[in-house]
Amino acid sequence: MFKEIFKNVSLVSPVVHCITNYVTVNDVANIILASGASPIMADDIEEVSDIVSISNALVLNIGTLNTRTIESMIKAGKTANKLNCPVVFDPVGVGASRFRMNTGLKLLKEIKFDVIRANASEIKAIAGETKLSKGVDVRLEDAIREDNLEYYIELGKSISKVHNTVVAITGPIDIVTDGEKTYLIRNGHKDMGRITGTGCMVSGLIGAYIGANPENILASTALAIAAMGLCGELAKKETLKKGLGTGSFRTYLIDYMSNLDEKILIGGIKIESR
Amino acid sequence: MFKEIFKNVSLVSPVVHCITNYVTVNDVANIILASGASPIMADDIEEVSDIVSISNALVLNIGTLNTRTIESMIKAGKTANKLNCPVVFDPVGVGASRFRMNTGLKLLKEIKFDVIRANASEIKAIAGETKLSKGVDVRLEDAIREDNLEYYIELGKSISKVHNTVVAITGPIDIVTDGEKTYLIRNGHKDMGRITGTGCMVSGLIGAYIGANPENILASTALAIAAMGLCGELAKKETLKKGLGTGSFRTYLIDYMSNLDEKILIGGIKIESR
Amino acid sequence: MFKEIFKNVSLVSPVVHCITNYVTVNDVANIILASGASPIMADDIEEVSDIVSISNALVLNIGTLNTRTIESMIKAGKTANKLNCPVVFDPVGVGASRFRMNTGLKLLKEIKFDVIRANASEIKAIAGETKLSKGVDVRLEDAIREDNLEYYIELGKSISKVHNTVVAITGPIDIVTDGEKTYLIRNGHKDMGRITGTGCMVSGLIGAYIGANPENILASTALAIAAMGLCGELAKKETLKKGLGTGSFRTYLIDYMSNLDEKILIGGIKIESR
Repeated sequence: MFKEIFKNVSLVSPVVHCITNYVTVNDVANIILASGASPIMADDIEEVSDIVSISNALVLNIGTLNTRTIESMIKAGKTANKLNCPVVFDPVGVGASRFRMNTGLKLLKEIKFDVIRANASEIKAIAGETKLSKGVDVRLEDAIREDNLEYYIELGKSISKVHNTVVAITGPIDIVTDGEKTYLIRNGHKDMGRITGTGCMVSGLIGAYIGANPENILASTALAIAAMGLCGELAKKETLKKGLGTGSFRTYLIDYMSNLDEKILIGGIKIESR
Repeated sequence: MFKEIFKNVSLVSPVVHCITNYVTVNDVANIILASGASPIMADDIEEVSDIVSISNALVLNIGTLNTRTIESMIKAGKTANKLNCPVVFDPVGVGASRFRMNTGLKLLKEIKFDVIRANASEIKAIAGETKLSKGVDVRLEDAIREDNLEYYIELGKSISKVHNTVVAITGPIDIVTDGEKTYLIRNGHKDMGRITGTGCMVSGLIGAYIGANPENILASTALAIAAMGLCGELAKKETLKKGLGTGSFRTYLIDYMSNLDEKILIGGIKIESR
Repeated sequence: MFKEIFKNVSLVSPVVHCITNYVTVNDVANIILASGASPIMADDIEEVSDIVSISNALVLNIGTLNTRTIESMIKAGKTANKLNCPVVFDPVGVGASRFRMNTGLKLLKEIKFDVIRANASEIKAIAGETKLSKGVDVRLEDAIREDNLEYYIELGKSISKVHNTVVAITGPIDIVTDGEKTYLIRNGHKDMGRITGTGCMVSGLIGAYIGANPENILASTALAIAAMGLCGELAKKETLKKGLGTGSFRTYLIDYMSNLDEKILIGGIKIESR
C-alpha cells in the first residue's frame, strides 16, 4: 500500500494550494516540488475559490495569521469541502495567543478538515488542556515519549472523533490516527527542531501525499510524516559526515526528498500499525 | 555587445525595486545581489513612488497578489513610466484565477511595460488563448519545443506589438522578441522547474540587466535569461557530481551567478539571433 | 563576561518575537534557532501583546513596512516597554523613502528602544544628516573606515543619548555604544553585503543575546555582532576553500552559528573596549 501511495505522488503530481505563513513558505514550496507535486500559494479572498477548484489538496497554516487571510482561509476551506478537495490544518502556535486560539477554533468549526497536523503543545491547546504556550516550538515537557505515548494516542483519538478528521501529532514519536486505527512512526532526528519550518514542510508534504491519494488519507498522512523523518535522518548523517550545521541540514533535507525513491523509502520507514 | 551589457551590471550596480510575492522574494533578492545589483523590496502605496525614484528598474510580480499591493503596483508602474525607469512584468500563474487574469489585464492597460517575462502557459493566457491553467507551473503540453517554436515566436511577436514591449517566453527554449528582432536561447536545465522561484529570479535578474543597460532592453533581457540558464546548467553538473538534490541545486545556482565572469558567460551562452 | 553571556543564550533559550520583513524572515528565524533561541514571528495587532508577554525580546524591522504592521509594531513596542521586555530596532532603508523616515521617527518617539542596530547610511538618516539614500544597502562613501571612525563613534554616542538606547552601527568596523562606554568590533567579511539579510539576521541575533542577558544589553549586543562577524569569516573561508559562491556562503554562515562554541567564539572575536 505504501509503495502505491508513494508512486501516486509523482504520477498524479497534485496541485497543492497553501495558505501559509511567510516565514517558511519558500521551504514548503520546495519540499512539495521535491516530492513531485506542484505548490501554489494564493491567499487573497478574491481568488482562493478559483485556486481551490484547480487543486488536489488545500493546506491551511496559521503561522503568521492576520485578519485578512483568516477570511480567505474560511472561504478556501468551505470551497474545498464542497468540491471534496482534502484539507490539512496546521495550527502553528495555536496556544501562543488568544487570537490564534480563537481563530483555530473558528476554523475547526467552519471547515471540515481531513487532517490536523500539530506538535504536542498545539494538540493540547486544541484539546483545551493547556494555557499559553512558550511560542511556536513544542515545550520540552510536552514532547511525545514512550512513557506518555498512550496518553497522546488517546488524546489524538478523541480529537479525531470530535472533529471527524485524521489527527497527526508529530514529535520524537509521531502518532497518526483516525480515531480507530493508529500508526506510530519512529523516524526523524531531534535536530529537525533546530531549523524553522520542518512542521510546516511536513504539513505541505501531507497535502501532496493525500492530494495524490484522496481515498487513503490515514496511510498517506503516516507515509508523508515517515518520509520527512527519514529524509531528516539521512540529511543529519550527511551533515555530520561533512562537519556542517543547521544551514546545510536544511538543504540536505530537501535534497533527500527530491532524490527519494521507493527502495530508500520502503527500506527506511519505521511505521508501526496499531 | 553582450560583454558590454554584462560588465555594466556590476559597474552601474543598479537598484532594482521589486514588488513581488512572498514565496520566492528571498531568492530574488539573492540572485540580484549575486549579479552585482542591489535589490529593494517595498510594496506600500505610501512609499513606492519614492522607492521608484531612487531605482534603475522596477519588477512587478503577481505571484501572491492581494488587493493592497495591486494599487501599489499601479502607482509604482505609473511613476516608473513617468521617470523612464524600465519596468518588468512577471504575470505568475495569470491563468490560474479570474482575479489574476483581471489584474494582469489591468496592469497591462495602466502601465507601459518594457519587458513581459512569462512561461508558455502564462503567455497563452495573456493572449486569450487558454482557460484556467494547472497552477503556477507550465503545463506539459504548453512547453516550447522545436515543433511548436514558430507558433510561439509569432505569439510573442504579436503580444510584443499589441503591448509595445519586449516579450520573453521562457522554457526549454527561450524566446525574446521586440516584435521585429528575436533571440532564441538554448541554455538551462529542466530541473530548474523542480525548485520554486527560477521564473521569479530570472525576472529579477532581467531587472538588474536592463537597469544597467536601459538603452538596450532586448539584448539585455536575452542575456539575463541566458546567464540564468547557464548557471542552471553549471549548478546541475555540480549537483550531480556530488550526488545531491534540488536543495543544493538552488544553492549552487546562486553560487554560479555570484561567480559568473565574462569568460564563463561568453563561452557558455547559446543565443541565436533571428 | 562574554563567556557568561554566550552560555546564557542556550541555557535560557529566549523566545524572540520578531515583527520583520518578508524578504529575510526565514534567515532571521534560522539564525535565531542556530544560536539556541526560539523565534516567533507574529504581526497582527490582535495578537502582538499576547506574543510579547511570552517573549524575552522583541525585534522590530521595517524592511517591508506597511500601514497594517506599523500599528502592530507600536502596540508590541509599548507592551514590551510595560513588561520590561527589551526591544531592538532595525530601521532598514530608513532614508530610502519619506514613509520609512516618518515611520522610523514615529517608532522612536512612541517606543523606548534598548538597541538600535543600523548601517552607517541608516544612522545618518536617523541623525537627520542625509537625504534619500541609494536603497537598503549602505552607500560606499558612508562605510565606517579607520579615517571616519571617530566621527561615527561621536554620532553613535549622540543618538544613544538622545534616544536613551544602545546604538550599534555595523559595517567594516562595528561600533556599539551606550553613550559612555563603546565597543569596536573588527570581525566580519565584506561579502556579507553580497547576501540579503545579514543586517536583519544580526538584529535578530541581538534579540536572542539580550533576551538571555537583559541585565547586560551593551556587551550582549557587541557579542552578538562579533559572533555574526566571526561566523561570516569562517563561512567565507569554507566557501573559498570549496570554490563556491554566495548561496553556499549564506548556508555556511548559519552552519557556523549552529556549531559555535565557547572556544571558537572567545578565540575568534575581535572586540576592543573604549
